[in-house]
Amino acid sequence: MGREEVCKKGCSLGEARERSFWRDLAAEFVATFLLVSVQCALPLTWGRNDIGSGIHTALGMTFIVTTTLWSLSEFGGIHMNPALSLSMMCVRRISIFRGLVYMVVQSAGGVAGAALIWGLTPEQFRETLASTELNPSMTVWQGLGVEIWLTFNLILTLHGCTYTGRKVNILMFSVPIGMAVGTGVLSGFASTGASMNPARSLGPAVMMGKWDHHWIYWVGPCLGSVLATFTYYVVFDKPDKNQKASH
Amino acid sequence: MGREEVCKKGCSLGEARERSFWRDLAAEFVATFLLVSVQCALPLTWGRNDIGSGIHTALGMTFIVTTTLWSLSEFGGIHMNPALSLSMMCVRRISIFRGLVYMVVQSAGGVAGAALIWGLTPEQFRETLASTELNPSMTVWQGLGVEIWLTFNLILTLHGCTYTGRKVNILMFSVPIGMAVGTGVLSGFASTGASMNPARSLGPAVMMGKWDHHWIYWVGPCLGSVLATFTYYVVFDKPDKNQKASH
Amino acid sequence: MGREEVCKKGCSLGEARERSFWRDLAAEFVATFLLVSVQCALPLTWGRNDIGSGIHTALGMTFIVTTTLWSLSEFGGIHMNPALSLSMMCVRRISIFRGLVYMVVQSAGGVAGAALIWGLTPEQFRETLASTELNPSMTVWQGLGVEIWLTFNLILTLHGCTYTGRKVNILMFSVPIGMAVGTGVLSGFASTGASMNPARSLGPAVMMGKWDHHWIYWVGPCLGSVLATFTYYVVFDKPDKNQKASH
Amino acid sequence: MGREEVCKKGCSLGEARERSFWRDLAAEFVATFLLVSVQCALPLTWGRNDIGSGIHTALGMTFIVTTTLWSLSEFGGIHMNPALSLSMMCVRRISIFRGLVYMVVQSAGGVAGAALIWGLTPEQFRETLASTELNPSMTVWQGLGVEIWLTFNLILTLHGCTYTGRKVNILMFSVPIGMAVGTGVLSGFASTGASMNPARSLGPAVMMGKWDHHWIYWVGPCLGSVLATFTYYVVFDKPDKNQKASH
Repeated sequence: MGREEVCKKGCSLGEARERSFWRDLAAEFVATFLLVSVQCALPLTWGRNDIGSGIHTALGMTFIVTTTLWSLSEFGGIHMNPALSLSMMCVRRISIFRGLVYMVVQSAGGVAGAALIWGLTPEQFRETLASTELNPSMTVWQGLGVEIWLTFNLILTLHGCTYTGRKVNILMFSVPIGMAVGTGVLSGFASTGASMNPARSLGPAVMMGKWDHHWIYWVGPCLGSVLATFTYYVVFDKPDKNQKASH
Repeated sequence: MGREEVCKKGCSLGEARERSFWRDLAAEFVATFLLVSVQCALPLTWGRNDIGSGIHTALGMTFIVTTTLWSLSEFGGIHMNPALSLSMMCVRRISIFRGLVYMVVQSAGGVAGAALIWGLTPEQFRETLASTELNPSMTVWQGLGVEIWLTFNLILTLHGCTYTGRKVNILMFSVPIGMAVGTGVLSGFASTGASMNPARSLGPAVMMGKWDHHWIYWVGPCLGSVLATFTYYVVFDKPDKNQKASH
Repeated sequence: MGREEVCKKGCSLGEARERSFWRDLAAEFVATFLLVSVQCALPLTWGRNDIGSGIHTALGMTFIVTTTLWSLSEFGGIHMNPALSLSMMCVRRISIFRGLVYMVVQSAGGVAGAALIWGLTPEQFRETLASTELNPSMTVWQGLGVEIWLTFNLILTLHGCTYTGRKVNILMFSVPIGMAVGTGVLSGFASTGASMNPARSLGPAVMMGKWDHHWIYWVGPCLGSVLATFTYYVVFDKPDKNQKASH
Repeated sequence: MGREEVCKKGCSLGEARERSFWRDLAAEFVATFLLVSVQCALPLTWGRNDIGSGIHTALGMTFIVTTTLWSLSEFGGIHMNPALSLSMMCVRRISIFRGLVYMVVQSAGGVAGAALIWGLTPEQFRETLASTELNPSMTVWQGLGVEIWLTFNLILTLHGCTYTGRKVNILMFSVPIGMAVGTGVLSGFASTGASMNPARSLGPAVMMGKWDHHWIYWVGPCLGSVLATFTYYVVFDKPDKNQKASH
């Protein structure tokens, strides 16, 4: 986010020769690792009824997204989400090479985060380790629709809050992006698990071997992301430059 | 919000010749669609007791209002609420023509949002699709009073945080406006459903055919909005210009 | 808050000749009215078990404090609390005359807010209308201690976030002040009701005729307020001017 | 936080000759006292089922951390946590002398905060006074891992949000730091109690005489803190200076 200058340095394999590229990958790994580890821990109930609810999980996800973006986003943007990297590739805010490498690193970070919680949680309390599962009463099309809808909102918020062509000051964009993830969790907790992020779904799927409808959590977020990107940059295009908001 | 300059460009049908007018309508539609879809999804319980509570709904509404305003408000203000457009017309921050078109677009966006959740939710879990209903133990006057009270607070907050005649810096006004909606939901969840917004009530009413006391959700918010506008611009008028706060 | 210049205009009855004085009183009344009306509505459960909890009430109070301060604080500060006005008088940020008038207006606003909720709520759901009551297992000294402790935290936060002698930029001070009230509600909900504000306690006491231990809710907040003021301006005095934080 | 200049004034016992040193200690004591007193009060249930949950506690901790940092951090940084002071000593943002004295003051503040709540709470409602205890089904290694993991996230957030070598504007860093504490409480409430802070664990341990596995709450946070410091300053080193974010 906010890294338009990335491509100017060379949108190709040449990026890999820069030290900052590897530092960005390290930060992307650490951030995704933290995001998915917290996600896997939040909905666990430990046999109690006062933790692990939808709002408990949503607040925690809002916080971890906001804090990782706020603290680390100068290191290559901190996408933590293949669907976001796809969107950034579409609008050339990152190179295709960087985007593909990010997706690999995000997947690895997601698996590592889920593995940590697997190891730190006694077996009887692991439940599904926050695996994203389709509510049994839904059709796959409804599930796909929920993931498209929630990711559309997330990616639209992200571009609306970070695109410097329209905003003079992208002040504290990490707050609304965290809130958009929170909105998703609150809205889709009981239907699809509100993934909006293939890397987040991949981690617990690998650790628990739960692959039912896993494709929904890749296709849905990617479709929602592309749709939001198209809406923001094509449908809402040609803004009056003097209408830039200063907030 | 923050768009005082709109009227200078011509407060008449002439606006419709500008490309930005149509872009603003598209953004208004998308934002209201997202707002109402999230509103319809939030209070559904899916047969569980850990989601859909008052605070669950309030936090989600706070987030979706904040994120849509933060990300899209440079596109014509993003009112998402006919009661707000009415207030903006009263103080000439938008033209009457634009205000009326906004109301139509908001109503369409609200119905589309409700329709999406209707389609994405299995029939047995649709409940009333978040229709705003008067608590059966209340009189209509009490219900009307609640909607006036909560909308008064919302619109007063909105003008207090966006009126550039008094604030030098309307920094992040989307945060308190989201909070004002959250305050309303927390305060009126069990009495009127805390609409504060005719378009938000219209969506589920159309989809579920629930029209009991529907007029309250148009008259209440509009009265509260006009009362808040009068309070802010007439009762609190003639501020000392040097007392402008810099926060 | 942020109104050091008030006293320069004359710390006496002369203030009453200025139009802005009366406007400030109107804003103080409206803000306290909104604060106490929301406070009275938040903990009501309407016979349900998913609303009215401690966190429900705390989040609502955080929001209403933040929104009233953010939107209206350029009108005379918006204290909404006699204990705060007392503190502001102690450090001469307002005149004694203004402070005493504020306390009267705050009391009137508090009663009006409680009266509104009394009228808008069906009798069977009014409960105690959020009256602040001492938990029956506590001694009065414990209750007094809780009010001192929580108000100390509130007033210390307030001065720390608004004293322009130490902070260059009092950016968005309404956020932490709202949070300080929220902290209080979360910490004292079950013991004293977490008033921290005599006007907030007065409103429901008048409407419901509940005056047991009412003095605690005047003495406790005032003592806590004076103690915090002493701590901030005397114990923490003589800061290095170049250490002013820019956040 | 944000006090790089501290060391330039002399990193030795000479600091104790400055008046501001003693003022900073007073502020550190008051802040830690408030933090731990609120922490001890938040999870108490008073025999009710609508307060004291994980999210109730997490929201309160988020608020108290944010408000103490926002209001007091110009007084020597306000660490409130020996693990943070250790990290600041490692990167020379404070002197070793100051760091060691802070740890003593934090411990004293933590015990004083716990003592206050012990005194203000009727005996039958004191429970464990929020002592941090290992969930009986966990191994000590799992408990140690949880504390390392959560503190790692906290300290990484802290440096990422306050290190002025990378951020031009450390605007409102108190918000994400509060959120990082909230993330920890939400993620570890049922496993280790989510201390992340030896002083916070020490207070109730002293008051209630609960010392089982107490070493975990010193070793875990300190290891997590050092690991996060190493990650931020060594693994993520050599950032492009022109990539400084302006948010």
